Amino acid sequence: MTETKPSLLQSLVGDPAVAEHLSDAADLAAMLRFEGALAEAEADAGLIEADAAQAIIAAIAGFTPDWADLARGMARDGVVIPALVRQLRNAVGEPHGVQVHKGATSQDAIDTALILRLAQIIPIYEERLVALQAALAALSARDGALSLMAHTRMQQALKFTVAAKIRTWTEPLERLLAALTASRRQLLVIQLGGPIGDRSSFGDKGDAVARYLAERLDLGLAEPWHASRDPLVGFASLLSLITGALGKFGADVALLAQNEVGAIRLAGGGTSSAMAHKSNPVNAEVLVSLARYNAGLVGTLHQALVHENERSGAAWTLEWLALPQILQTTGASLRLANDLVGQIGFEDQSRTG
Amino acid sequence: MTETKPSLLQSLVGDPAVAEHLSDAADLAAMLRFEGALAEAEADAGLIEADAAQAIIAAIAGFTPDWADLARGMARDGVVIPALVRQLRNAVGEPHGVQVHKGATSQDAIDTALILRLAQIIPIYEERLVALQAALAALSARDGALSLMAHTRMQQALKFTVAAKIRTWTEPLERLLAALTASRRQLLVIQLGGPIGDRSSFGDKGDAVARYLAERLDLGLAEPWHASRDPLVGFASLLSLITGALGKFGADVALLAQNEVGAIRLAGGGTSSAMAHKSNPVNAEVLVSLARYNAGLVGTLHQALVHENERSGAAWTLEWLALPQILQTTGASLRLANDLVGQIGFEDQSRTG
Amino acid sequence: MTETKPSLLQSLVGDPAVAEHLSDAADLAAMLRFEGALAEAEADAGLIEADAAQAIIAAIAGFTPDWADLARGMARDGVVIPALVRQLRNAVGEPHGVQVHKGATSQDAIDTALILRLAQIIPIYEERLVALQAALAALSARDGALSLMAHTRMQQALKFTVAAKIRTWTEPLERLLAALTASRRQLLVIQLGGPIGDRSSFGDKGDAVARYLAERLDLGLAEPWHASRDPLVGFASLLSLITGALGKFGADVALLAQNEVGAIRLAGGGTSSAMAHKSNPVNAEVLVSLARYNAGLVGTLHQALVHENERSGAAWTLEWLALPQILQTTGASLRLANDLVGQIGFEDQSRTG
Amino acid sequence: MTETKPSLLQSLVGDPAVAEHLSDAADLAAMLRFEGALAEAEADAGLIEADAAQAIIAAIAGFTPDWADLARGMARDGVVIPALVRQLRNAVGEPHGVQVHKGATSQDAIDTALILRLAQIIPIYEERLVALQAALAALSARDGALSLMAHTRMQQALKFTVAAKIRTWTEPLERLLAALTASRRQLLVIQLGGPIGDRSSFGDKGDAVARYLAERLDLGLAEPWHASRDPLVGFASLLSLITGALGKFGADVALLAQNEVGAIRLAGGGTSSAMAHKSNPVNAEVLVSLARYNAGLVGTLHQALVHENERSGAAWTLEWLALPQILQTTGASLRLANDLVGQIGFEDQSRTG
Repeated sequence: MTETKPSLLQSLVGDPAVAEHLSDAADLAAMLRFEGALAEAEADAGLIEADAAQAIIAAIAGFTPDWADLARGMARDGVVIPALVRQLRNAVGEPHGVQVHKGATSQDAIDTALILRLAQIIPIYEERLVALQAALAALSARDGALSLMAHTRMQQALKFTVAAKIRTWTEPLERLLAALTASRRQLLVIQLGGPIGDRSSFGDKGDAVARYLAERLDLGLAEPWHASRDPLVGFASLLSLITGALGKFGADVALLAQNEVGAIRLAGGGTSSAMAHKSNPVNAEVLVSLARYNAGLVGTLHQALVHENERSGAAWTLEWLALPQILQTTGASLRLANDLVGQIGFEDQSRTG
Repeated sequence: MTETKPSLLQSLVGDPAVAEHLSDAADLAAMLRFEGALAEAEADAGLIEADAAQAIIAAIAGFTPDWADLARGMARDGVVIPALVRQLRNAVGEPHGVQVHKGATSQDAIDTALILRLAQIIPIYEERLVALQAALAALSARDGALSLMAHTRMQQALKFTVAAKIRTWTEPLERLLAALTASRRQLLVIQLGGPIGDRSSFGDKGDAVARYLAERLDLGLAEPWHASRDPLVGFASLLSLITGALGKFGADVALLAQNEVGAIRLAGGGTSSAMAHKSNPVNAEVLVSLARYNAGLVGTLHQALVHENERSGAAWTLEWLALPQILQTTGASLRLANDLVGQIGFEDQSRTG
Repeated sequence: MTETKPSLLQSLVGDPAVAEHLSDAADLAAMLRFEGALAEAEADAGLIEADAAQAIIAAIAGFTPDWADLARGMARDGVVIPALVRQLRNAVGEPHGVQVHKGATSQDAIDTALILRLAQIIPIYEERLVALQAALAALSARDGALSLMAHTRMQQALKFTVAAKIRTWTEPLERLLAALTASRRQLLVIQLGGPIGDRSSFGDKGDAVARYLAERLDLGLAEPWHASRDPLVGFASLLSLITGALGKFGADVALLAQNEVGAIRLAGGGTSSAMAHKSNPVNAEVLVSLARYNAGLVGTLHQALVHENERSGAAWTLEWLALPQILQTTGASLRLANDLVGQIGFEDQSRTG
Repeated sequence: MTETKPSLLQSLVGDPAVAEHLSDAADLAAMLRFEGALAEAEADAGLIEADAAQAIIAAIAGFTPDWADLARGMARDGVVIPALVRQLRNAVGEPHGVQVHKGATSQDAIDTALILRLAQIIPIYEERLVALQAALAALSARDGALSLMAHTRMQQALKFTVAAKIRTWTEPLERLLAALTASRRQLLVIQLGGPIGDRSSFGDKGDAVARYLAERLDLGLAEPWHASRDPLVGFASLLSLITGALGKFGADVALLAQNEVGAIRLAGGGTSSAMAHKSNPVNAEVLVSLARYNAGLVGTLHQALVHENERSGAAWTLEWLALPQILQTTGASLRLANDLVGQIGFEDQSRTG
């Protein structure tokens, strides 16, 4: 089985918790969960027999993929599903193998498998946002009464308090956490459309299969969205709003931790290979990098909205290139922001300026 | 007075209705409206005397700006407000001139003036989206029963109906129209923070002034958001979802109107300087261009989320470069989509493929 | 005639000298120059009669465009040339009117007209780069021996000299100026391909017409590049390297001019509407904004490389949206960098850190 | 040791040959090569003793890294060099360990190690471009005389030949191959500046060390470019011109291979999980995806030009996020273009239109 292990660069800018849900193994598991639930939903709806569904579920439970064949299929077909369905049908065998993936198309499996994993990634983000807000609140409780020089346009402006400063960091995060939680309703829905996205391949049972499938996967119901990617791209845009807010936090910290400014002391800063006296605001800087990387990626992902006709291989593949990066970048940004807040100590600036 | 008139290029890709709200004249009018309402709100709150507010209101009513001085101020200060406030204070004269803009900062005036204009631009978008949906519904009523070949990955797939095809265009627009309407609550709020965004410049009356100001401008109340631009950038991301959906519509029409495909006849296509037989799908193509332009701009605008400290001249100016383009591009896309839908006639494809 | 006048925002981020070459008037003049030279070249090559060429030249000399008709044509055809050629043919009248634009296509006229204007814009950039290098050299001559604290990763590193610092600004500009000058050879070439870009519309005289046309327009000769936009996009990428280098200069100056750092004093900084004591590094900040704006635009322009078949209305229109912005942003960046260098005074930091 | 293995997605959009040079193992090998050559160059220049250099070379030859410690160092310091230098110094031991990395800074090692690998990646690109041109020439030799309908603005224009069509693909590739080869001179240079980029850490031997280092690494000599990233970003822009040209090739092929157009038959197209009759132009579509992905990444990389002061952790890390993706995307695009050209067969269209 092919797998991505963390690289040195990922030690800095990656996020193992999110990456785990983006691995081939997690992707395959989610696709198999889709195929199993589809078979059950089709039995529920009377499209296939209960025996067939049971045989499919049993085969999936014991399924060992031929990864090399899947990789060849991916390279040839542009999607992994044709190869996977062939393997699964073989695993199910006669007479029920032919019922695997019945009426469905590659996009149904792949998009639903993505959504199943987003459903697991969102709580990671939420948990880290909650932890970050708590840590910032604790920092404000400890240092909030200290005096701090505010800066506008890179110049000293007037004094305010550390609590007021921290409020500028927490206020957008509150709003963005609420938006993240609210994003579930439109985002966490099944994809089920069949070859051309109209469910006609399920005969008159398409809507029933969809309803049962949504129930079995604990996802919302939606019309097929093969070529309508706005909920997905809107979600990614929200993630970039989060990394942007954290990039602003990082930029502020790096500026306030300048030796000449001295408003923030950072514990555990990065060391230098050449200058022993340095303590570099590494986490703060990387938050800026991640914000800018996500900003660029989100612009690229918006390009994928021009999704021609009933399925665009070009636009869909572009999503695959950009979205996993956005997901992991967001996780890394939240991870580093939590690390950074633990490093911050404010200095009173009542005598400054 | 300096003013932008439509250029030849704007005849194709511009939108006069939106552009009008982005003109210097509209910007100035909105800033004056802010300054007037601020004076009244400050009188309401007891921060300045009613006489002062009346004098300010009267001066604004008869105010003639010195545009050349404003332009010089803009170039020198990076914002127009210092020069404008000087002109306004002169216009009010003694003894009340000094009360103009009291406690406020440039960003309060400029951001609120932007929001006042967004409040006028959103209905333009909504009206055009409603018109577009109606026109697509009429098209579906007329041609919906016709047979149409669906295409996936640039290849013929299976047949469906024109009604099913049109449904793939209208479904995201419904969702996006609802999101646009819902965007008002977070977006259409006042900006009032004073020099460093904490309202301390209004003494203990900051929240009261903000409340009265919001009422007088018919905007929502919000904490100062000088350095928290996520609602604005989130709104722009939504606009790019709209132009992306319309770019997909344009791409589909251009593909279906290919001579070899012949699924759509376009009335009033563009002519060629070299080939008299051609009828070019100009509006469809430009919808693609506008979608891609907005996608790029929205990525750039996300870069502006890294807004250092209490006000970033760099990030804020970047917003000014990108956001008006996004606003006008969105208007143009909706304008052209409405034009395009009126040009479309489907051909029955029951004998195709 | 429709025309764009500078707006308030353009007072800050625009460039009148470059904008002049991007105006409708300049565009039309260049297209007329193309049509005149084409007629002469076609007479040179024996494709049309000398009388026809003379009649065309004479008509162009006295030509008054109907701007409203051109704008309508632009909106309908997606390009202005069909309407312009009709007007020109009417102006020439019988019997030679039909020889206007003979064998050519819209793209020949529009692309060549763009190149003619780029030939005028490049010297503006070069002149400003030369002036900037001279001003930085003078600054180095005056302040170069002063001690300056270097900063890595936002922290004090070690001391070096102002001369060494200025060298980090001038060194890339030398390289970029050389690249700009060298860009002429591939960039400043005619476009002549006819309807489908193979010159077959000129019979067997296509290459001869091209050669004469290049001579008459003082441009290089090139194979038709209707759908091969890499020289244009490569040029724009170079411009973004320049604005990026100037953005780095601006970022450095804004950081060194922080009150707490005090390594640079800026004469004539921007004033604040709320804080009389401030002197804002407006030009430095705007250099950062312009660098980031151009970076985003250049990414968008690279999207236009996917130029389908013999002419893509979608990709070409996207160029029109992005490239003029890049050109003007580059001009503005060079203008502001020259302004900024004149504001800089270094403070000796031998006692710092 | 941590390592990246190909994922399923990489089977489609990755490039193992390029990825190998981007692996941790290749990065480390190149950094060790830098450290060894630096020691030798410093001995050449008389900065350290020959014994020290020999001890360092010997230690490097037998060096086994502690990968977990490197990963921890990367996360803490934002660069791997401090941890690596500590390990290396331990490996060398007393008395020469302290001479490892003498006078150098992290950026010297990391940037030079990048350049060493670019020197190996460029020939991969060149070889594939040459192969692609040869394959296109062979295709033209076989099918060039066939008639083909040209298309402008998504409509049939006029007929030309397959040879003329292929010429529109090869002509930019010729130019881009020449540019790639020429890019070596400015790109393939050492980085050597010491902590603040002025070589003062090497006493009066900095330029001599640089000269010897360049010789030993077979790289060009250059002034330190710690904060001047235009050659690197310019190179990446060139790569995006290449993937853009190949994206245009892919878009053309996908359009010409439409069932309704039928100008191209593709051998070995992708299969569908739902529609047995389909043969999808997977490689052609993915070329479009890769072009758009690189376009977006190159815009992001241009953002990293705003590299504050003597070293920006934020801008440099952003490079690390974007550049390896660009390198691998370019490799994959060239790989797929070669695959695609082998699948193409033109159909004569003399009776079409």
